[in-house]
Amino acid sequence: MRLRLSHRAQPFVSERELMNMQPFIDAAHQLVTQRSGVGRDFLGWIDLPDQQSTEMIAAMKKKASEIAQKANVLVVIGIGGSYLGTRAALHLLGHAVPELAAPSLRVVYAGHNMSATYLSELLADLDRYDVAVNVISKSGTTTEPALAFRFLQAYMEKRYGKEDAATRIVATTDRANGALVAMARASAYATFVIPDDVGGRYSVLTPVGLFPLAVAGVDIDALLAGARRAKQELSESDVSKNDAYAYAALRNILLRKGCAIEAFVSYEPGIHYIAEWWKQLFGESEGKDGRGLFPTSLDFSTDLHSMGQYVQEGARILFESVVRVKSPRHALTIPELASDADGLNYLAGQSVQHVNDTALRATMLAHEDGRVPQVLFEMDDMSEQSLGYLFYFFELSCAISGYLLGVNPFDQPGVEAYKKNMFALLGKPGFEAERARLLSAREETRNARE
Amino acid sequence: MRLRLSHRAQPFVSERELMNMQPFIDAAHQLVTQRSGVGRDFLGWIDLPDQQSTEMIAAMKKKASEIAQKANVLVVIGIGGSYLGTRAALHLLGHAVPELAAPSLRVVYAGHNMSATYLSELLADLDRYDVAVNVISKSGTTTEPALAFRFLQAYMEKRYGKEDAATRIVATTDRANGALVAMARASAYATFVIPDDVGGRYSVLTPVGLFPLAVAGVDIDALLAGARRAKQELSESDVSKNDAYAYAALRNILLRKGCAIEAFVSYEPGIHYIAEWWKQLFGESEGKDGRGLFPTSLDFSTDLHSMGQYVQEGARILFESVVRVKSPRHALTIPELASDADGLNYLAGQSVQHVNDTALRATMLAHEDGRVPQVLFEMDDMSEQSLGYLFYFFELSCAISGYLLGVNPFDQPGVEAYKKNMFALLGKPGFEAERARLLSAREETRNARE
Repeated sequence: MRLRLSHRAQPFVSERELMNMQPFIDAAHQLVTQRSGVGRDFLGWIDLPDQQSTEMIAAMKKKASEIAQKANVLVVIGIGGSYLGTRAALHLLGHAVPELAAPSLRVVYAGHNMSATYLSELLADLDRYDVAVNVISKSGTTTEPALAFRFLQAYMEKRYGKEDAATRIVATTDRANGALVAMARASAYATFVIPDDVGGRYSVLTPVGLFPLAVAGVDIDALLAGARRAKQELSESDVSKNDAYAYAALRNILLRKGCAIEAFVSYEPGIHYIAEWWKQLFGESEGKDGRGLFPTSLDFSTDLHSMGQYVQEGARILFESVVRVKSPRHALTIPELASDADGLNYLAGQSVQHVNDTALRATMLAHEDGRVPQVLFEMDDMSEQSLGYLFYFFELSCAISGYLLGVNPFDQPGVEAYKKNMFALLGKPGFEAERARLLSAREETRNARE
Repeated sequence: MRLRLSHRAQPFVSERELMNMQPFIDAAHQLVTQRSGVGRDFLGWIDLPDQQSTEMIAAMKKKASEIAQKANVLVVIGIGGSYLGTRAALHLLGHAVPELAAPSLRVVYAGHNMSATYLSELLADLDRYDVAVNVISKSGTTTEPALAFRFLQAYMEKRYGKEDAATRIVATTDRANGALVAMARASAYATFVIPDDVGGRYSVLTPVGLFPLAVAGVDIDALLAGARRAKQELSESDVSKNDAYAYAALRNILLRKGCAIEAFVSYEPGIHYIAEWWKQLFGESEGKDGRGLFPTSLDFSTDLHSMGQYVQEGARILFESVVRVKSPRHALTIPELASDADGLNYLAGQSVQHVNDTALRATMLAHEDGRVPQVLFEMDDMSEQSLGYLFYFFELSCAISGYLLGVNPFDQPGVEAYKKNMFALLGKPGFEAERARLLSAREETRNARE
């Protein structure tokens, strides 16, 4: 149930280079552990593995089992950090081909986009299921989830009546302030609290992730136990003993050596949304002040037949962080075929996992020849414990990495730019001046160009 | 049913810069239309919209309707260009939340990875459905699909008997040569031909894409009609009149100005796999000889709450190619809420599409302020016609763009590197020398390092 850094981008980064980072790692370690750096008000994630209230956990489990009794579809409404951790966990732990599965409860998502097509088709199909809703938003006024909840609240009240609907809707939100907590109180919804000192992208181990995961039947105690073990094992500043810190140092070294892109690579399709979670974590923490690695992801061997050509021979501006899963969920042995018409009998009796794992090894050798630096993580299995460990590992790496980069790893000022423009263009009260400025500035530019 | 280039990265690229590319566009146009450039043996895609045999199309439709009669799950086995076009089309044209839908026939994929977890769980669930298989591979020996087909062929024969299985398995492969066509003949499977002069990433309008799409109920005539219209409208070399050529020129200009990454952006979740198809098309065509833009994709507004921070304020090495869908599949009007508890009543009576579209406009303004060049495409709707137009538009752009870059847009030499290593490490007959070289070379490196 661990994540190990087993290949450290050699021969592209030497051990000496890594050791040269130690004083700076020490400084970043102080900023995190002494809570003295920029963004220090958002370090609450450090304590999530071992300091959450047992009463709150028990209350979540109780409500989760009540929901799981009466519903077979849970609609999770949230965007960014309010849904990516849940989606990452369920995609890894759940059925590999969800469209074919017949689970007792299915989680679907809303409020993570503003597509009329998506929302219409979601709403149209809910009638065939018993539905519950978990709406997740700190403020309750983020447009995407607020809009989706306006539709879904109306749907639930129309279908079940106000009273029954109230037992099927759970709000995960601020303790005291904001539109959503007010709405939850007005309708007597069960609520769970998003702590003030935990930002969205660090919130998977709060009720933001834990509650919907509990509804879906995930063992959240095991998830937290994995994170707790990571917290214990990754507590030293020594880069030779702390893999999370070594990873933070490596990615900063590779950035300074000319890599502009980091690709998160895996060979298990179940990892796909963990990569999406990781992209938000690092992209939002580091992509600021004109800096940061561009985080992207590749699903191998699928994408070896797509982006593989670029990785092997395109512009040399990329490194890979590869996650190897040591034990997948099933063993599958390749059968003998009497005719050997497909020429695969040389693999008969081998496991599919062995072939997949050999593809990983072969690709790493090929990409090394293609001058692509690679970092390799080994994840024991696809269990809750290992996933909890992984979440904490990358959260900690990201904090250290952001400080090494020289940015505030805990803010996201750039996310406001499109929102402000959108409110202005939509005519939201309070944005009149912005609207006038925006429209006239564009008008001027347009005239000047013509 | 068109794709229009309605914003040409101004003010970051001037009209003058674009016009300066005309002589080179003319040269690339000659290479494509006179079929005189490198890779000229793979220009068959040019004729697919209007020169495919009507008998072959009729035969595909007949077999497709036969399969659709007897199966409710079609397993499409293929990787890279053998499945991405189909997946892109079905994701756009199909239900937005496939897990909730109850279609008369569902398409799932195999052979696009080598995960034992994925393949085991897929096989375990097939028993609950009536199954058909379309195996797609030029040679029949690409490891991923060949391995999956070995399992699925055994499954089908065990479940249905050899004779009935043969009516449920369709092979799309080479006309005469290779393992798959031989297997298909031996078992009397229906077969459709992958033309010799069309590479995988350009093959969506051959039976590779057309047959599974026909089984799924897609109007393939309309798809081809859209492509035909694109072929007619995008025939001139004049960059001011040919949007596909203008796009090819713009991306080369932006690369030369310092952009390393191109992000394919959309605001409709249904576009997601079109972006994956586009990534293969451009990544595999241009990522060679140390060159090429790194193609990536972003689903907005989802990813504005994830990668949005980086795009707005991170390293300035990226430009965006944004697809706007003018008419989504459904209209949805935002209701009034008596309490206005969520503060969204200023939007009541507006359509969700208007809000989504305003997010697009607002984001483009914000990213322009953040110095991100942007290209905007307008797609009329999410119909077969528009999709056919889009496929042809980007295929043509990609050919011109690759020539402008100075590479062969139709080969993929780098895809072989991992395969060769994999065969060697797996002990495939014929790769003994490679295996010895590989293992001893690594041994030496390892010793030298220690």
